[in-house]
Amino acid sequence: MKLVLAYSGGLDTSYCAKYLSKEKGFEVHAVSVNTGGFSKEEIADIQEKALQLGATSYTSIDAVHYFYDKVVKYLIFGNVLKNNTYPLSVSAERIVQAIEIVNYAKRVGAQYIAHGSTGAGNDQVRFDMIFQIIAPEIEIITPIRDNTLSREAEIEYLKQNGVDYAWEKAKYSVNRGLWGTSVGGEETLTSQKPLPDSAYPSQLQEKEPSEIKLTFDKGELVGIDGEQATPVENIIKLERLASKYAIGRDIHVGDTIIGIKGRVGFEAPASLIIIKAHHLLEKHTLSKWQQFQKEQLGNFYGMLLHEGNYLDEVMRNIEVFLTDTQRNVSGDVYVSLHPYRFELNGISSEHDLMNASFGSYGEINKGWSADDAKGFIKILSNSGKIYNHVNKN
Amino acid sequence: MKLVLAYSGGLDTSYCAKYLSKEKGFEVHAVSVNTGGFSKEEIADIQEKALQLGATSYTSIDAVHYFYDKVVKYLIFGNVLKNNTYPLSVSAERIVQAIEIVNYAKRVGAQYIAHGSTGAGNDQVRFDMIFQIIAPEIEIITPIRDNTLSREAEIEYLKQNGVDYAWEKAKYSVNRGLWGTSVGGEETLTSQKPLPDSAYPSQLQEKEPSEIKLTFDKGELVGIDGEQATPVENIIKLERLASKYAIGRDIHVGDTIIGIKGRVGFEAPASLIIIKAHHLLEKHTLSKWQQFQKEQLGNFYGMLLHEGNYLDEVMRNIEVFLTDTQRNVSGDVYVSLHPYRFELNGISSEHDLMNASFGSYGEINKGWSADDAKGFIKILSNSGKIYNHVNKN
Amino acid sequence: MKLVLAYSGGLDTSYCAKYLSKEKGFEVHAVSVNTGGFSKEEIADIQEKALQLGATSYTSIDAVHYFYDKVVKYLIFGNVLKNNTYPLSVSAERIVQAIEIVNYAKRVGAQYIAHGSTGAGNDQVRFDMIFQIIAPEIEIITPIRDNTLSREAEIEYLKQNGVDYAWEKAKYSVNRGLWGTSVGGEETLTSQKPLPDSAYPSQLQEKEPSEIKLTFDKGELVGIDGEQATPVENIIKLERLASKYAIGRDIHVGDTIIGIKGRVGFEAPASLIIIKAHHLLEKHTLSKWQQFQKEQLGNFYGMLLHEGNYLDEVMRNIEVFLTDTQRNVSGDVYVSLHPYRFELNGISSEHDLMNASFGSYGEINKGWSADDAKGFIKILSNSGKIYNHVNKN
Amino acid sequence: MKLVLAYSGGLDTSYCAKYLSKEKGFEVHAVSVNTGGFSKEEIADIQEKALQLGATSYTSIDAVHYFYDKVVKYLIFGNVLKNNTYPLSVSAERIVQAIEIVNYAKRVGAQYIAHGSTGAGNDQVRFDMIFQIIAPEIEIITPIRDNTLSREAEIEYLKQNGVDYAWEKAKYSVNRGLWGTSVGGEETLTSQKPLPDSAYPSQLQEKEPSEIKLTFDKGELVGIDGEQATPVENIIKLERLASKYAIGRDIHVGDTIIGIKGRVGFEAPASLIIIKAHHLLEKHTLSKWQQFQKEQLGNFYGMLLHEGNYLDEVMRNIEVFLTDTQRNVSGDVYVSLHPYRFELNGISSEHDLMNASFGSYGEINKGWSADDAKGFIKILSNSGKIYNHVNKN
Repeated sequence: MKLVLAYSGGLDTSYCAKYLSKEKGFEVHAVSVNTGGFSKEEIADIQEKALQLGATSYTSIDAVHYFYDKVVKYLIFGNVLKNNTYPLSVSAERIVQAIEIVNYAKRVGAQYIAHGSTGAGNDQVRFDMIFQIIAPEIEIITPIRDNTLSREAEIEYLKQNGVDYAWEKAKYSVNRGLWGTSVGGEETLTSQKPLPDSAYPSQLQEKEPSEIKLTFDKGELVGIDGEQATPVENIIKLERLASKYAIGRDIHVGDTIIGIKGRVGFEAPASLIIIKAHHLLEKHTLSKWQQFQKEQLGNFYGMLLHEGNYLDEVMRNIEVFLTDTQRNVSGDVYVSLHPYRFELNGISSEHDLMNASFGSYGEINKGWSADDAKGFIKILSNSGKIYNHVNKN
Repeated sequence: MKLVLAYSGGLDTSYCAKYLSKEKGFEVHAVSVNTGGFSKEEIADIQEKALQLGATSYTSIDAVHYFYDKVVKYLIFGNVLKNNTYPLSVSAERIVQAIEIVNYAKRVGAQYIAHGSTGAGNDQVRFDMIFQIIAPEIEIITPIRDNTLSREAEIEYLKQNGVDYAWEKAKYSVNRGLWGTSVGGEETLTSQKPLPDSAYPSQLQEKEPSEIKLTFDKGELVGIDGEQATPVENIIKLERLASKYAIGRDIHVGDTIIGIKGRVGFEAPASLIIIKAHHLLEKHTLSKWQQFQKEQLGNFYGMLLHEGNYLDEVMRNIEVFLTDTQRNVSGDVYVSLHPYRFELNGISSEHDLMNASFGSYGEINKGWSADDAKGFIKILSNSGKIYNHVNKN
Repeated sequence: MKLVLAYSGGLDTSYCAKYLSKEKGFEVHAVSVNTGGFSKEEIADIQEKALQLGATSYTSIDAVHYFYDKVVKYLIFGNVLKNNTYPLSVSAERIVQAIEIVNYAKRVGAQYIAHGSTGAGNDQVRFDMIFQIIAPEIEIITPIRDNTLSREAEIEYLKQNGVDYAWEKAKYSVNRGLWGTSVGGEETLTSQKPLPDSAYPSQLQEKEPSEIKLTFDKGELVGIDGEQATPVENIIKLERLASKYAIGRDIHVGDTIIGIKGRVGFEAPASLIIIKAHHLLEKHTLSKWQQFQKEQLGNFYGMLLHEGNYLDEVMRNIEVFLTDTQRNVSGDVYVSLHPYRFELNGISSEHDLMNASFGSYGEINKGWSADDAKGFIKILSNSGKIYNHVNKN
Repeated sequence: MKLVLAYSGGLDTSYCAKYLSKEKGFEVHAVSVNTGGFSKEEIADIQEKALQLGATSYTSIDAVHYFYDKVVKYLIFGNVLKNNTYPLSVSAERIVQAIEIVNYAKRVGAQYIAHGSTGAGNDQVRFDMIFQIIAPEIEIITPIRDNTLSREAEIEYLKQNGVDYAWEKAKYSVNRGLWGTSVGGEETLTSQKPLPDSAYPSQLQEKEPSEIKLTFDKGELVGIDGEQATPVENIIKLERLASKYAIGRDIHVGDTIIGIKGRVGFEAPASLIIIKAHHLLEKHTLSKWQQFQKEQLGNFYGMLLHEGNYLDEVMRNIEVFLTDTQRNVSGDVYVSLHPYRFELNGISSEHDLMNASFGSYGEINKGWSADDAKGFIKILSNSGKIYNHVNKN
């Protein structure tokens, strides 16, 4: 009875490791998928724990680049901010983790996959859906959900089985990844309370404003301040720079897949700066209708991704659409960083459509005459004129 | 030859007043429509100038409440920020000014309406369209556009005619109104340069953060910190409070009606805070699909308004839609003000759908069982499962 | 243990009546909701059966007008054809039936509601959702779904209990209502086969073409051939007229709520003629953007209705939108009826925007000059010109 | 003064040929672009006329395949019917004709392009926009529009110059092309009158119904009744088959680019059958959300194409989207042809998602249990339940 366990080293999945190997007799293969949240040290620590808890094997899958290529890239192309706020940091990671885990399970010939989600959140949906669609033959095991276990019961069980880590409940549950860090706590269970400063992983270290230059090539962040690097490296670098200013904190309130409202804090300086800078570059380089359709499709993409529908074919169709729109989204964006906020100062791009040789907005018209403008407006007014004439009484 | 001149007291419309009365022999009736930008003193000054310049009469129309009722209200209901940035401060005003002016012209029996727009901007379109649709029988006269006059030529002409005001070009052209202030200057004619701090009308005066409570009733801002007032009064009050923090500055880059890109700075603290606070309240009180459709229709409403299509019947249809969505958008929003930025801290509302009696996100599920959740996800996966099964090769 | 049973007189609900009263000891109150499908005779027959089967009471609720007012009207306003084909005949009925039944159950103080849906269709979702939302305190009982019973097993059980109606499986399962009749059979379980002519309820009786005039007032069908009547009466009358021509047959293929594809035949002459005639009238009386948004919102309304989401508040918002768009949708539409098809010949309306006094399409321009047209096109080309200039290499 | 004239052999462009060569001294290079409307004989005749009228050269450009590849293909992928009716036969042709002509003009180094459009139609916009965007350096000459000439004046002028063809006004102006034939006449200038039977190019010749099988491969029509051919050949073949049944007639009423309503008859049997058959195949092979987005983007594509915005980059983006959606749109569609109408009987496809191994709609559920279904619906009801609970008073 080979079972692959989506393992993070936290209390819930530790309980699962022990419970499934000991009580249920599974051969537990623990797997964690790193989408940017774990350091080498943390992975070594996770591994040690997994094996102590009874796992037969432990594997860490490095999925940072896969995560960027399969999801993050399109979130940038689409300027996706759920409800105009949240860069979908966690939602996006879960998808990639689920895909890596189910593919791993198929590779090793497991008949079971286990995960530690509760029955009250989005993650169970994202995991289960992807597992079932990609490998309907594999059975899904979810002890925490099935037994609606409390933290206390889990700790007690582990203690009885000789596992006595420091499980004292951290005041905030934090999920860290390439595209941002989410923060939940007692305040986010209310509608009124903000998270205290201290709940956020980064604290203000730098008060002196600075300016950076972000270089995009076909929509991807290929350079910072003139230094070329891969987009993943640049995201990490920008995160480091901007988190010193404590930039990128906010609280997301949204509709969960299971129909209740959820509220979660996050800190995502790199995501927010990149999306806003990228969007500004698009305002200069895309046509009005490109922007119109991108907004609709980008939001829709975010909605389906958030709801675990990543495997719907329409997502692939939207991805090719978004990629095609990026052909001319290349150039530099100037951003200044300040404590708790950033400003977009401007862009320069050889594809900039704000091109003075055709005249400047509100100033003198070079490419057309007053009569052209009057003819334009006259004919633009036709439909309204007719409507008013016909319906005036 | 009775002519109504849309008069602001600036150089362009002053030129028009003199030129049309003296050279063209029109009986010039100067009108300014106050959408929140003029104080009593300024209006008295404008009146004096108008008469000196040869106007037969001068009328100031107070349209602040009309502006709010006909446009601003719906921009709030729709959370309208053009290109996710700009509250459409000027675009919205022009519409209302045009309507007031053409109605005035009809009342006084004028055969002509004049305005001072150039041939390179959006305003000419907004004015002309509304004039032509509402009063196709009235002829439109636009000396600045027709003669593509430079400022120097206008100043020279006025000087020759005994009018020698201090027309030295202000470094920034500023348009002030209830819904925000726009700022244009040599920087906004480039793509790279931000406006300097000094270009914005408000400067940082208050460094100590403070918290305010905004009370909404069916989507309208009816109180600040527990004091009830009309929405217009509250907007003005909030503007005063927040501009001390120099909140609400940004630069809008967008597609003009005439097809070129335009860039303009703005300062709109009240608009931005109200829209973001209102949006947060909606996240708590509206269904997922209400938010989905509101976003689409709100953006579309903004696009048509921006482009001068306010009179299209679809705008009325969208307005009733938006109004209907506001039935439960009532409650308090807590906002903290900081230098150059604000934070939304939370809300309280009796219509809050984040209601703990149904269970809390990610915590324990009260209203359903683990099996319910599993059945839900199983059936949600059906279409993906079938798709993968059928197309797996 | 008071139970309200949604009763239609068919095998499934007859089984439920007997089973729930006899085996489970419920006090069964059978209710059928007439949305246009039952004649008086049929209702009398249903009543007799219900009581024979052990129901304590039987009630027939006449919901035809409610059905029209709450749903059908908006399907017309929105020109709703699911997947461009299906007038949502059954989907729409189920909603109204569910609402009437749950309201009845609340009125009589029942603690249980039962219905005869299987676990493989849309109806279970529509019923359960509406029951749970309106009356979460009432428990839902579904014997057919729970026991996955076959027809044979149900017949056998009834026979054993002394009920031996002629249950021989009709070759086609037919559901009749005001807005159309659906027809399922072995062919519709395949993707290839059409329904045979004989499966459709109406057969060709009239080969001679005829012309009728449909009169709409604010989007509602208020007259046929000059005779005024209520919309419901007109729908019934038109159905009678057009079904003689065997008009309005088609097969709908679509996505069910449970994720599988479904295929069902239907005959809906009145719905199709009314929607197409109404749509033509709108093409003449609405602005381009009204039609654009109506199409989006109408399709969305149909999707949510189909999926049982009728109670989502966004549906009310869309209804006020649609109603507001109908202000000028008044006039006559000329339709000719032919065997198996109809043609729209034209319309006349005082709100017709195709008004020759502004010039005729493609003929001579009355309201503008060649130069106006050239100016219009020149400025319309600006954005494309700039794009090509900037990106030409 | 080298001038390229878009020449069709009709009165307007004949007038242009003579007038521009004789009165204005241009070196006139007449060009016609064949998008499927002209036979070899007609082209020979057009050539002869052109040279007689004073053209220096005549060129016929065969653009049928280019037309299919650049436009028609996407109209099929997107199931594009303007206002749910019109396959955009003429609109689509004009775009391709304009592109071919301006490219020809650039190749031969012409400084001028002339066309025969009036100032009251869509074609002037389509031609001028594409000419100006692709070759802003070339001047556009439009004698018919500029001089608002009547047919009589044109005939008189030609007569005086020795050209006396039989210009008697055809009762109907007919435009024929690969994607359909448009028909305008005095009836289409009214809102009430249908075109008489005789106005349509094809008359009923075949009364016996027949069935055909259309084979699609990735959305393209690659075979009819088992015979493989190119899509263009198949369109022509299907047109021939179906026009014997007088299938595909209708009248389009729509908004012109210049703001007035226009009405035009058309006969487009192949387009309508292909689009409807293709759409049915998609209902079986695409996911719900693919269909949802395709409908929105397809309609939008049609709107922009119709309005001459073919060169907007968003059109390229939508084209890659549409192409990507066609990956599995392969299979056979069974269509029966009847006098004046056709029926879609069914499809067969290895990508058919209506796959019995997962259970059949409304019948017995194979892939899930009654409890799964109940859990599904319970959780689907969550948001509505909460809404009702919170807002019940």
